[in-house]
Amino acid sequence: MNKAVAIKDIPRSDMAIIDGLAEKGVSTVHEAQGRVGLMKTYMRPIYSDARIAGNAVTVLAQPGDNWMLHVAIELCQPGDILVVGCTTDNTDGMFGDLLATSAQARGVRGLIIDAGVRDVRDLKEMDFPVWSRAISAKGTVKNTLGSVNVPIVCAGQLIHPGDAIVADDDGVCVVARKNADMALVNANKREQKEEEKRDLLAKGVLGLDIYNMRPRLEEHGLQYYDDVAAWEADK
Amino acid sequence: MNKAVAIKDIPRSDMAIIDGLAEKGVSTVHEAQGRVGLMKTYMRPIYSDARIAGNAVTVLAQPGDNWMLHVAIELCQPGDILVVGCTTDNTDGMFGDLLATSAQARGVRGLIIDAGVRDVRDLKEMDFPVWSRAISAKGTVKNTLGSVNVPIVCAGQLIHPGDAIVADDDGVCVVARKNADMALVNANKREQKEEEKRDLLAKGVLGLDIYNMRPRLEEHGLQYYDDVAAWEADK
Amino acid sequence: MNKAVAIKDIPRSDMAIIDGLAEKGVSTVHEAQGRVGLMKTYMRPIYSDARIAGNAVTVLAQPGDNWMLHVAIELCQPGDILVVGCTTDNTDGMFGDLLATSAQARGVRGLIIDAGVRDVRDLKEMDFPVWSRAISAKGTVKNTLGSVNVPIVCAGQLIHPGDAIVADDDGVCVVARKNADMALVNANKREQKEEEKRDLLAKGVLGLDIYNMRPRLEEHGLQYYDDVAAWEADK
Amino acid sequence: MNKAVAIKDIPRSDMAIIDGLAEKGVSTVHEAQGRVGLMKTYMRPIYSDARIAGNAVTVLAQPGDNWMLHVAIELCQPGDILVVGCTTDNTDGMFGDLLATSAQARGVRGLIIDAGVRDVRDLKEMDFPVWSRAISAKGTVKNTLGSVNVPIVCAGQLIHPGDAIVADDDGVCVVARKNADMALVNANKREQKEEEKRDLLAKGVLGLDIYNMRPRLEEHGLQYYDDVAAWEADK
Amino acid sequence: MNKAVAIKDIPRSDMAIIDGLAEKGVSTVHEAQGRVGLMKTYMRPIYSDARIAGNAVTVLAQPGDNWMLHVAIELCQPGDILVVGCTTDNTDGMFGDLLATSAQARGVRGLIIDAGVRDVRDLKEMDFPVWSRAISAKGTVKNTLGSVNVPIVCAGQLIHPGDAIVADDDGVCVVARKNADMALVNANKREQKEEEKRDLLAKGVLGLDIYNMRPRLEEHGLQYYDDVAAWEADK
Amino acid sequence: MNKAVAIKDIPRSDMAIIDGLAEKGVSTVHEAQGRVGLMKTYMRPIYSDARIAGNAVTVLAQPGDNWMLHVAIELCQPGDILVVGCTTDNTDGMFGDLLATSAQARGVRGLIIDAGVRDVRDLKEMDFPVWSRAISAKGTVKNTLGSVNVPIVCAGQLIHPGDAIVADDDGVCVVARKNADMALVNANKREQKEEEKRDLLAKGVLGLDIYNMRPRLEEHGLQYYDDVAAWEADK
Repeated sequence: MNKAVAIKDIPRSDMAIIDGLAEKGVSTVHEAQGRVGLMKTYMRPIYSDARIAGNAVTVLAQPGDNWMLHVAIELCQPGDILVVGCTTDNTDGMFGDLLATSAQARGVRGLIIDAGVRDVRDLKEMDFPVWSRAISAKGTVKNTLGSVNVPIVCAGQLIHPGDAIVADDDGVCVVARKNADMALVNANKREQKEEEKRDLLAKGVLGLDIYNMRPRLEEHGLQYYDDVAAWEADK
Repeated sequence: MNKAVAIKDIPRSDMAIIDGLAEKGVSTVHEAQGRVGLMKTYMRPIYSDARIAGNAVTVLAQPGDNWMLHVAIELCQPGDILVVGCTTDNTDGMFGDLLATSAQARGVRGLIIDAGVRDVRDLKEMDFPVWSRAISAKGTVKNTLGSVNVPIVCAGQLIHPGDAIVADDDGVCVVARKNADMALVNANKREQKEEEKRDLLAKGVLGLDIYNMRPRLEEHGLQYYDDVAAWEADK
Repeated sequence: MNKAVAIKDIPRSDMAIIDGLAEKGVSTVHEAQGRVGLMKTYMRPIYSDARIAGNAVTVLAQPGDNWMLHVAIELCQPGDILVVGCTTDNTDGMFGDLLATSAQARGVRGLIIDAGVRDVRDLKEMDFPVWSRAISAKGTVKNTLGSVNVPIVCAGQLIHPGDAIVADDDGVCVVARKNADMALVNANKREQKEEEKRDLLAKGVLGLDIYNMRPRLEEHGLQYYDDVAAWEADK
Repeated sequence: MNKAVAIKDIPRSDMAIIDGLAEKGVSTVHEAQGRVGLMKTYMRPIYSDARIAGNAVTVLAQPGDNWMLHVAIELCQPGDILVVGCTTDNTDGMFGDLLATSAQARGVRGLIIDAGVRDVRDLKEMDFPVWSRAISAKGTVKNTLGSVNVPIVCAGQLIHPGDAIVADDDGVCVVARKNADMALVNANKREQKEEEKRDLLAKGVLGLDIYNMRPRLEEHGLQYYDDVAAWEADK
Repeated sequence: MNKAVAIKDIPRSDMAIIDGLAEKGVSTVHEAQGRVGLMKTYMRPIYSDARIAGNAVTVLAQPGDNWMLHVAIELCQPGDILVVGCTTDNTDGMFGDLLATSAQARGVRGLIIDAGVRDVRDLKEMDFPVWSRAISAKGTVKNTLGSVNVPIVCAGQLIHPGDAIVADDDGVCVVARKNADMALVNANKREQKEEEKRDLLAKGVLGLDIYNMRPRLEEHGLQYYDDVAAWEADK
Repeated sequence: MNKAVAIKDIPRSDMAIIDGLAEKGVSTVHEAQGRVGLMKTYMRPIYSDARIAGNAVTVLAQPGDNWMLHVAIELCQPGDILVVGCTTDNTDGMFGDLLATSAQARGVRGLIIDAGVRDVRDLKEMDFPVWSRAISAKGTVKNTLGSVNVPIVCAGQLIHPGDAIVADDDGVCVVARKNADMALVNANKREQKEEEKRDLLAKGVLGLDIYNMRPRLEEHGLQYYDDVAAWEADK
């Protein structure tokens, strides 16, 4: 019932859309598609200031076993991002500078791995960004099959092969492939609206007024007091 | 019994004291006031090398809801620090670059939040430091009231509005407002004493001798052996 | 049965070997000695890009008590690394800039501590690297004896005094003293082999082919499909 | 600025109110006082089915040091509950069957401790319930002062001496002393209302109808589909 | 792009298959379907010895908000199990004895919730089993829509509405609906094989011999030594 | 340098000593040998009220691989306890009812495993106690060698084959084999002393007086106040 498979060909989004999503960044894209698709917050970049997007090549791996990563790299194209889930929580260093060299040679833009990574200094020098659960020098075996390009759960999110992945200092977000263009459209709209608000806020106008929050706060019963003494007196 | 309130006017410490505490830093101030007031170690800065102090404007928020932050910003003055506690553990990104723009426009020096923060690259560029439990792109709703400028517990510490907050790479420390001046006096004294010790230690004098520890170690029964063989022989 | 002791003289490895191990780094050394000796992944450097090795001076400390660190520093020599284990999980800041000044005056290269550290900005300026479980301003008392230069468990690994410690951005690894020279020999061999592979991988040759994985993948039953439709059809 | 003190006499609530709160249980009391005062969920009972309430005698302890517990027991009266906070996270077994024997002899009803406890089999046999962060056989020293009957933070909540504590399988809740009687009044009201709802729900009436949720769900935009096919068709 | 929806009608498995899976238990079913579908180990039962299976009615909830649970209960049938995922990690008590009364009235067999639950003593008395991430008295609001009977991720696993859920003291496992009958067939086979092995093992026959492991151990290089002295001599 | 080995013959303690230690329990034995040897508190029993001791047969396993457990069982004798460490943190269910049947057939008294266990209901019925880091139905492979009867680190403690293990509801403690008889002697002494104290405490005599703590509390500067008002007045 649960065969080990590798799917060679997956649908992908246009790189124009992908690159547009990268430019918008995780927080904007996540909002733009209705606040879904954000991986858990334990996924952290191994170095700051990287901001990438790409088409997901998915890997389901066993704990302590990185065999399927070699299978996956063959199936990668320029603009892809490797996304690795694990059958159980594991922090072993499944990926290091050799696999990064191989991935980079195929145009892979980065790695999202719900496990460990190593050689992080080398990866930084190579400009190969990784978001992971842990950093660990612990190497892995190549003994047990997993699968490549099947739907996986990675850090709490369902990822289909070919979904768009966006990653930066705020975390990692997945955009379903069929929603990628609309997410970009919405992200652009959102960014414009935010720009206007930012200008107002920078001038000292309050969110309370921009968003007209005062009546609703009053309706919900928020009570203002001049100072603590007034509050204490009213208790 | 548990009303949602916002207190407009809070007592604050003089900025001279506040700035003095910032200069001393968290570890020195924490010692200077008798080793109380340190927040839990999961509170980490979103970027290195920030060192701030300010008067606390406190916010009690609901999980996944940042409504009260808008209420709080209106009540801030230059030199304040926003301090946000949450009714249950939550990592959602309650605060991002828009709120930071608004806060900075009012002279707020930074944010301490026992929840998540987002847009961290923008915040770094804006030089708006944040100490938080998590980084998360997950946005929040504005549906449920909390309170502003009431006593809160944030990361294990009780904070009253107007308390002095000190934050740097070592963490976050709260100083009760009435103790702020004395804490600064003590911190200065401590720093002077440490300077003398530092000079001695740098010259190779041992702490064992500076602090006269040898007699007490002997009294407590510490046994020295020349080498492992001598120890094994004595077992 | 459990006396508090301090062993003055411990065996050490030649600095040539130690320096060789530092140059190879944690991930290579860990592989070179057969994938043993890696500390748990919660041990993180307080700043990036440090890479050190040294002979271990071990400390067994009580929670919230750094007394034994003063005892240990007297017993250090140039090229040593302080390695501190704790009788129970504790994050207090047992070590700061004063102890670092003293340690550095004796030629100590860094600190590995399964507890907390403080004054991290100063330590960075001093170029005194630390790998720790936490950063905490919480100071400690000097009341309860522990031991110095006895075997300890630190972050899941057994450390004997005089073992070689290697630490960098990938974590911390211990090499048993009697294995240090062989580990260096193996690390050099491994590095050479990796260099050849790296060249091939950079040219686009696949790990699948370099390691001849295809037959074994087939033997284990990995099934390739052209696309998702083909896979679905076969289910 | 931070003296070690022990306050002998504290205000307490009538035992009739305390016993009433115990009968209502944590979840009802927590709701009844407006959803404040709940300790963090890592506080778990060492055995099931205990349900107690009492007046808080508070202890601020150092990590690995239970000295202040002896000081506290002398200040206890029948109907009290010991509530112990710690200056840093610590799991040592600060309390065991001897202290429980002493506490029980003075009429103490149980222990709430944000640290560890031991001899749990004995405590169960003695019918002395404990809610703690951990179970640990690790004993503690008696070297560093803390304080008794000062305000403390325990598991995320501020506790004043004399506050009412309610604890059962759902966790631990604190009720400010001046609110204790009103909390009981509200809890009784709430229980009555819940009884009526429970009867309706047991008969199969839906919460959607009892609480009249349907219009508001529609207003917020919830869309019903007959089946997945209808949903897919509409996407 | 991300509408709030409730799907009324979902496919379900025959109760004969469901009941068969319950009888086999989580560990056997998990093996029988190829070691997929196991939720993370933090999902624990609120009381021991419950063993259930059912058809999944799925709920996607917001942190601190249980509104969708009311929507879900209306859509339940006898033999269903409620499965609740949350958009961010949250431990609030989203479900208590009232919702359990309502669910039980509709024939729901239990709850799987990647959040908190309360009234656990009542739930135990009602014989309504729950597997959850936490126990918490913290109540929730009814302000923000989620969805019912859409695919969700719960504790690391993808759940489609109508999937079969099996839960017991070993944890929680999901079986894709179309695999439910085959999983039961395989589970029966596995149980038979295990029975034979159990008899042999109980008689003292070793797994080494039953599984013929000795040649492969030798081939992999396992070396036996008579005692530690022999091993040391060979190092 | 790191060969996979299995040592057939290990030294063991007399069962009279072992049984004596079991009777004393973990907390008493841990104190009796000077507060060393306690495993981390995350090691919890799968059911309450078990209390065992035995001679340690040690296993070093790889994550997700229980091959070495089969090797270990052959080397067990009546009165042994299996103690399993893992090269990296892992929660997979390495041990279930089949291995327990085999172990029990050889007289093994229980299992201590720094990983997962499954079939916990069966194990409870078999009266085969286990202390573990997790409960998990996730099965394991048999692909990578580890070692049997070598020194291991398990849950933070160094264990040599043949060491005495004591486990009960308070956790797990290791006693070095050569200290086992002395630990029992000390445990008996301690128990007697505690009995006397328990009688006094039960009568209401305070620990403050039994241990003569009052002068030392005064010397350390503890200040008593009659009530909060007196304390506030003195601040």
